[in-house]
Amino acid sequence: MKIRHIGIAVDSIEKRLSVWESFGLKLDHTEKVDSEGVTTAHLKVGGYEIELLEPMSKETPVGKFIDKKGPGIHHLALEVDDIEESLAKAKKNGLEPIGKAPRPGADNTLIAFFHPKDTGGVLLEIVQSN
Amino acid sequence: MKIRHIGIAVDSIEKRLSVWESFGLKLDHTEKVDSEGVTTAHLKVGGYEIELLEPMSKETPVGKFIDKKGPGIHHLALEVDDIEESLAKAKKNGLEPIGKAPRPGADNTLIAFFHPKDTGGVLLEIVQSN
Repeated sequence: MKIRHIGIAVDSIEKRLSVWESFGLKLDHTEKVDSEGVTTAHLKVGGYEIELLEPMSKETPVGKFIDKKGPGIHHLALEVDDIEESLAKAKKNGLEPIGKAPRPGADNTLIAFFHPKDTGGVLLEIVQSN
Repeated sequence: MKIRHIGIAVDSIEKRLSVWESFGLKLDHTEKVDSEGVTTAHLKVGGYEIELLEPMSKETPVGKFIDKKGPGIHHLALEVDDIEESLAKAKKNGLEPIGKAPRPGADNTLIAFFHPKDTGGVLLEIVQSN
């Protein structure tokens, strides 16, 4: 059980990258995720990642987030060993995932999301690697 | 260089602890930090911490944050090897720390903060251990 990544909504990756480079983070790669309408920049820090999320337009989920709340930390992803077990525990504590859970994520993972209204303000992702 | 902790502003530690326990985080200890007007709950995950921050009143920095933005992720702390070097690099990239920097933090550390308006929406703390 560990933090997998922290997703940060930014107006512009190009403009904001130097902030993180100041503190020793290295750009690993950028990616266009058309299905989510977002360009992501993956920065390595220790064993895991900070992801800068730049929306392709105002109508995307990250675009709407920036419109409503301003840029800033968008979600937190925790890696779990057994996502079914974690979902069952969450359910016991009154937490219901958003939509289908688990569902396939990138890189052969299984993922689930929990809504900020249930977690106390944090969009929370859990991820099981294979 | 690694993530040291993620600070999450909550309305009530008691009410929100079970969310994090659902995913395997363990409560290490709670602390009252009178100087900041906050009670903190330190949860261990892998090698570092999630800190739940419960304000003692609405007039504290965390109380004002919740009033303005709602509960949620409040700040991100990165551990650096040499805080003077990090501050110099940040300055080159046009980032000025808030107030005196570095200054002493808890547990014999040196700390500095950067304002969300300069980092792209994230209250960023850097920490040098001894």
